[in-house]
Amino acid sequence: MKSIHSADFKIGLLGGGQLGRMMLQKAYDYNLFIAVLDPTREAPCHQLANEFIVGNFKDYDTVYNFGLSKDVITIEFEDVNSDALADLEAKGIKVFPQPKALKIIQDKGLQKEFFTKIGVPTSPYFIVKDKVEMAQKATQFPFFQKLRTSGYDGYGVQKINSKADISDAMEGPSMCELAVPMDKELSVIVARNESGEVKNFPVVELEFNPEANMVEYLFSPANISESIEKQAQELARKIIIELDMVGLLAVEFFLSTSGELLVNEIAPRPHNSGHQSIEGNYTSQFDQHIRSILNLPLGDTAATKPSVMVNLLGEKGFEGPAIYEGVNEAMAMKGVNIHLYGKATTKSFRKMGHVTIVAESLQEAKTIAKKVKETIKIKA
Amino acid sequence: MKSIHSADFKIGLLGGGQLGRMMLQKAYDYNLFIAVLDPTREAPCHQLANEFIVGNFKDYDTVYNFGLSKDVITIEFEDVNSDALADLEAKGIKVFPQPKALKIIQDKGLQKEFFTKIGVPTSPYFIVKDKVEMAQKATQFPFFQKLRTSGYDGYGVQKINSKADISDAMEGPSMCELAVPMDKELSVIVARNESGEVKNFPVVELEFNPEANMVEYLFSPANISESIEKQAQELARKIIIELDMVGLLAVEFFLSTSGELLVNEIAPRPHNSGHQSIEGNYTSQFDQHIRSILNLPLGDTAATKPSVMVNLLGEKGFEGPAIYEGVNEAMAMKGVNIHLYGKATTKSFRKMGHVTIVAESLQEAKTIAKKVKETIKIKA
Repeated sequence: MKSIHSADFKIGLLGGGQLGRMMLQKAYDYNLFIAVLDPTREAPCHQLANEFIVGNFKDYDTVYNFGLSKDVITIEFEDVNSDALADLEAKGIKVFPQPKALKIIQDKGLQKEFFTKIGVPTSPYFIVKDKVEMAQKATQFPFFQKLRTSGYDGYGVQKINSKADISDAMEGPSMCELAVPMDKELSVIVARNESGEVKNFPVVELEFNPEANMVEYLFSPANISESIEKQAQELARKIIIELDMVGLLAVEFFLSTSGELLVNEIAPRPHNSGHQSIEGNYTSQFDQHIRSILNLPLGDTAATKPSVMVNLLGEKGFEGPAIYEGVNEAMAMKGVNIHLYGKATTKSFRKMGHVTIVAESLQEAKTIAKKVKETIKIKA
Repeated sequence: MKSIHSADFKIGLLGGGQLGRMMLQKAYDYNLFIAVLDPTREAPCHQLANEFIVGNFKDYDTVYNFGLSKDVITIEFEDVNSDALADLEAKGIKVFPQPKALKIIQDKGLQKEFFTKIGVPTSPYFIVKDKVEMAQKATQFPFFQKLRTSGYDGYGVQKINSKADISDAMEGPSMCELAVPMDKELSVIVARNESGEVKNFPVVELEFNPEANMVEYLFSPANISESIEKQAQELARKIIIELDMVGLLAVEFFLSTSGELLVNEIAPRPHNSGHQSIEGNYTSQFDQHIRSILNLPLGDTAATKPSVMVNLLGEKGFEGPAIYEGVNEAMAMKGVNIHLYGKATTKSFRKMGHVTIVAESLQEAKTIAKKVKETIKIKA
């Protein structure tokens, strides 16, 4: 049998962004060989990958040909050609997450139907093929229109406040989700390996930038009751098991003002809501992803210290080669861990990096996080 | 001014071994550009370096030409051509550690004389140019013969038990050091940046493999009195300041059975006695090395948890392509962090990787470390 700790065993990674980059940084600890496919020559992974192939991961032939020489294929971005992955799987190549699970997750309509089917609580929704159908079906406002496919990081999501807004809605088949009065957003990352071992990380709490609709702060642990903590963990485990998925799955929740826990979205890969685990937990989400797809024992997910993660988003109104202001000042603060993703150019709200602050108490970490946020600015 | 977070700013690293590899893994967090020079095409750094140049770091022209295009030059191995580095420094290129400090450290005779000059306690010694002079000067036994230059990891060191042993001593100028009855070996890693900021890590305790004369276990924190802790930290700080050195310095100590703290050796780079800091401290030694040579604020060095580091040495009697036994079993244990260095071939006692065990108590970490040591075997 080939040793996974040698270049004889080839892992193929679709996507070469920051999630892939952090996965590669960890993968060197296990001496893994990882080839990366990404359309952008200067993608965050291009310097670290053992092999970096420029190509479109949405194209059937490109993905199929890339995958043929690999032992295991995985992703760091879910909007890839899952038909090619299904055919590679049929040829006996291991693909984790499996194409069947991926196809459900890639389509926000199928995702919602899946939650309903397995009895997982989620906010009320309706599915439409276009704006005409939206106008017919909409009875309650406000709601969020989410394009069924290709949305990410706040793109492909629009708030519809009234009947009049529908004419400005996005074109394309959509899932429309009623806006639930919300107390908090939460996330649980769970992993499952081929042997069926399942382990979840503790619940974390997310605070969004309202303008960019992107995570701005993450708090670990979440400030929630034991009962909600337990419910969220159990729902995450239930979803990965019902999906019969191998790999890492991020499960995002809404906690409504009435105390109801609703599943929002899932992502079958390392996720922004797990970045704090690099310094704040016994095992990082990147380590856990690697362990899950290689059928290694899953790592302990307990937090080692309270932590706060701050996303470094490109300053609004700046576009061009990135200039990092205030990084040195932030580095002087205790427990501050800077992660820059190596993207050459910035634009408004682009994810350019993140910072994790580890401290003896969450309050202390929050105080430092606020200072970090005020200190680091990414301009052009 | 060039931004250090871009490929415009080029760092040159002499040596492409595991210390460089772990430095590179961290350097991606700051988006640094690092070119590596190493004679071995398949060195542990070759896949991760932004640029990997195959060449002899002991050769004047090779080092000089490699260095000319760089903004900062550093090392992960001290036996490099320091004359070339001195000439690069004279041209205005930053070289950290500075060639002047490097020349003292490269020669175990000059090192000892330096300790004596600045009043740092060290074990009694005498310097000889050859075996004839050794026979003349040796009055007390046993002592350790250490070749003045080119020794590392137990090579270039020999125990001389009696007058009769001298005929079997190594050829070459040597520093001969009286064997002091020893209680423990300790280490402190200290860093200094160009602005003069100095920070040291807490003291750690080392346990050697007697046969290979290499570190087998490391314990953090060391089990020593507060007074010894303070003395060791102060001596480490004194040495880096007196050397006027910028960079990271590992200071190894003997604690004699009579309770005397003696400086053994120093190394101006990340060191085996700091590996636990990756998971066990707020800032890792690799992070601190990077911070020091780029004149960034030094990071907090406190331990986050007790930890034990186990070196993974090639099993005695095996030589050839490495086979890793027991890695999966070890990965199932809590707090176990595996680091494989990506060396294609193993041989007796070769450093092939290390494992850091982080736990709530040192005792718990020690228990797991023992199991890890029994579980992982690197054979061929």
